Amino acid sequence: MPSAKTQPARGMRDFLPADVRKREYVIDLVKEVYESYGFEPLETPAVENIETLMGKYGEEGNQLIFKILKRGVHESTGEADLALRYDLTVPLARVVAEYRDKLPKFFKRYQIQPVWRADRPARGRFREFYQCDVDVLGSRSTIVEAEIVSAASEVLSRLGFKDFCVRLNHRKVLTGILGIAGVSLDKHESALIALDKLDKIGSEGVKKEFEARGVAGTAGDQLLSFFSALSELEHAAEIVTEDNAQQAFNKAVLGRIVEFVKDNELGAQGVDDLQSILDFADVMGIGHRVKIDPTLARGLSYYTGAIMEINVKDLAGSLGGGGRYDNLVGMFLGQDIPACGFSLGLERILVVMNERNMFPAELGSSPADVMVAIWNKDSVVESIKLARELRAGGLSVDLYPEADKLGKQFKYASSIEVPFVAVIGEEEQAQGLVAIKNMASGEQQTVRRGEAVDLINGFLTQRRNGAT
Amino acid sequence: MPSAKTQPARGMRDFLPADVRKREYVIDLVKEVYESYGFEPLETPAVENIETLMGKYGEEGNQLIFKILKRGVHESTGEADLALRYDLTVPLARVVAEYRDKLPKFFKRYQIQPVWRADRPARGRFREFYQCDVDVLGSRSTIVEAEIVSAASEVLSRLGFKDFCVRLNHRKVLTGILGIAGVSLDKHESALIALDKLDKIGSEGVKKEFEARGVAGTAGDQLLSFFSALSELEHAAEIVTEDNAQQAFNKAVLGRIVEFVKDNELGAQGVDDLQSILDFADVMGIGHRVKIDPTLARGLSYYTGAIMEINVKDLAGSLGGGGRYDNLVGMFLGQDIPACGFSLGLERILVVMNERNMFPAELGSSPADVMVAIWNKDSVVESIKLARELRAGGLSVDLYPEADKLGKQFKYASSIEVPFVAVIGEEEQAQGLVAIKNMASGEQQTVRRGEAVDLINGFLTQRRNGAT
Repeated sequence: MPSAKTQPARGMRDFLPADVRKREYVIDLVKEVYESYGFEPLETPAVENIETLMGKYGEEGNQLIFKILKRGVHESTGEADLALRYDLTVPLARVVAEYRDKLPKFFKRYQIQPVWRADRPARGRFREFYQCDVDVLGSRSTIVEAEIVSAASEVLSRLGFKDFCVRLNHRKVLTGILGIAGVSLDKHESALIALDKLDKIGSEGVKKEFEARGVAGTAGDQLLSFFSALSELEHAAEIVTEDNAQQAFNKAVLGRIVEFVKDNELGAQGVDDLQSILDFADVMGIGHRVKIDPTLARGLSYYTGAIMEINVKDLAGSLGGGGRYDNLVGMFLGQDIPACGFSLGLERILVVMNERNMFPAELGSSPADVMVAIWNKDSVVESIKLARELRAGGLSVDLYPEADKLGKQFKYASSIEVPFVAVIGEEEQAQGLVAIKNMASGEQQTVRRGEAVDLINGFLTQRRNGAT
Repeated sequence: MPSAKTQPARGMRDFLPADVRKREYVIDLVKEVYESYGFEPLETPAVENIETLMGKYGEEGNQLIFKILKRGVHESTGEADLALRYDLTVPLARVVAEYRDKLPKFFKRYQIQPVWRADRPARGRFREFYQCDVDVLGSRSTIVEAEIVSAASEVLSRLGFKDFCVRLNHRKVLTGILGIAGVSLDKHESALIALDKLDKIGSEGVKKEFEARGVAGTAGDQLLSFFSALSELEHAAEIVTEDNAQQAFNKAVLGRIVEFVKDNELGAQGVDDLQSILDFADVMGIGHRVKIDPTLARGLSYYTGAIMEINVKDLAGSLGGGGRYDNLVGMFLGQDIPACGFSLGLERILVVMNERNMFPAELGSSPADVMVAIWNKDSVVESIKLARELRAGGLSVDLYPEADKLGKQFKYASSIEVPFVAVIGEEEQAQGLVAIKNMASGEQQTVRRGEAVDLINGFLTQRRNGAT
């Protein structure tokens, strides 16, 4: 058994080749889609000055930050002057302040890098994990919200997710609803936490929670009757099957909200935003994905406008979330910068794709398209030549490094799951031929050297098409 | 001026979009080439248990390791239990021990990840920098050395380097030469450090160094006369201009070495290896790149066989280096594993490519192929539709987010250096047309909506071809 000494550190992971290929498949697609929307890549160091991070994530966050000892004689004092990146938002805020003259007015960046948190490791929770953020800075236009939702949806669609739903709400709508109902500002968060459980514990349960949390009687009753009515609307909508069922449902929900909050300025603004985002989402072709959900709260603390979260059926938790947060990115600059962002849950997406077997078969686990075997000691040069020819033809080629017995080489080829083995025996060499063995079928074909690339490519294309 | 608070931590770097594109251009090409040789990707965590790293890099290394404080109550004690990855070789050794049953017998992996060293920052020396390693584990065959040199050469060639040279030597040859000359084992390193300066300080200078370093008189004289003769050979070779000048030179040098070390078993083995690597390199088409250099030493401590280093003219230091080290990767496994590796100097390659302007023009600095402007408030939906159409056609599209005055939008388009702007005015909308402005030439063309993608793609192809 491997000794504990060689395991990765607690909560950290090694990614062997098959894992890396899956991760890169997803990351490359995310990049491709985000770049097609005009997002630009940004990278910041893993290590930040400790004062850049401390105090930005609350008391709990402070404790979860990995702190790095000062070097040299300071090591013995225990003083920490650096820390590991905890998220990608604070570094973005720092970058915006540092380079604001170099950045475009509308800075659309994506950033896909690991972050580190000294959380207690658990199933699916790691101490090193990737975040995958897009943010648009500099505009208050709802086009931004719609584009961000559209881009994230396109990523998921192209990865093969068919059943996801973008839940959409608005901080101002929530504030409006709570205000109209008469919940005092300091009880907003408590009220939302209780309401969030409506589906699970029912009206009576929420009512008890309201009482326990000190949400005043009439206000609580008003909220409960408003959200219960919405909940019924939803269950009614679930049986509607027309093409635009989602749109009809959203219209009905927005209607109820307008009715309730029309006299609240913030609430009315929020409804206008939501309506505009829905309209744009329709034009972008994702109207059927977006669902207005007035119970969506997403940690109210720093969002200021629209909030969204993407869910799939049968999965607790989300595949990503985000929203507008107009007062955060300017923290180092000392001025507000409008901002709206979305974070794809890369690690969770990978887990779901693994469980659902959503990776293309050709990602496979083989290091190469073909392995070139070595007939005997005297034919090493011929094998090297062949490997070079096949590579020049665009194939990835694993050259067996030793003149072992051929049986041993084929056994090795099986073990690395390479789809083809190419050998040049004495006869083949004399005639300018090469033998190509299809490792899956066991078939062997002997062709002219110049035709080997086409033969293998043909097989690979067939396999790819057959597999999908 | 930006405040010091928003700069990255000392010795660390932010990479703005144009930087990231350049880095990814190089990294993607490295991956492509290494994968065509059957190397597989490996990734390990940034953070390792501190005992995994301590004591592996000598006393100096220990001090340069970034150490991470234990969390919670332990923070006050100053105890460190984790540390940042210092190189990619120790993690490889750990991975080999931990997963040896899952890895192929010949494990060919590449790994391109950052490492951290608490070095004093200087021009071109950073505290966070990428390493880019390939290693082949499990074989003692010289095919491995040749393939590693061939792959690294192909990377550099495809990046556009034309003037690089792979210097090749062998640890056993060095040991043989020093042994034959009569240098005692404990003086081998000193002798080589002095010899390394032969070109700069001449025979007399080296002689003085020998004396200062206690390399015995006769031994020093023998070495000096051997290496001086080789040095003359080299200067003679520089005027040879035939196609196979490098091969002829290598043959001559190897001949001299054989003559000198033929009675030393290790030395003779080393010469055989070098001859074999040269032969294979010839077949791989890189024979003219490889130069036998008996003065190449590369920190003797852990190499056990061939050593190599890639240099370009006018650049002190190398673009990469490596060699065979058969006793290192097994450190956690408790058994020797033959290994040969090469590390490309990614950061230095980037510096040189920047200085020499070697990046393709189309990498550019623009976030998109085309910006879609917004004619007025009422045409937002039309602009969103157009952006969607252009994206569906494979273009990257930046949708201007606000219905600003058109002049302001074009000014913005200039500032982000986007090559095209597409607008749909009232007339265009009525007729199903779109106006496309080439921002470099100022030309504007109005075409049918369905033709916009082809028009822009045509321009982009032209520009790409024109620029290269």
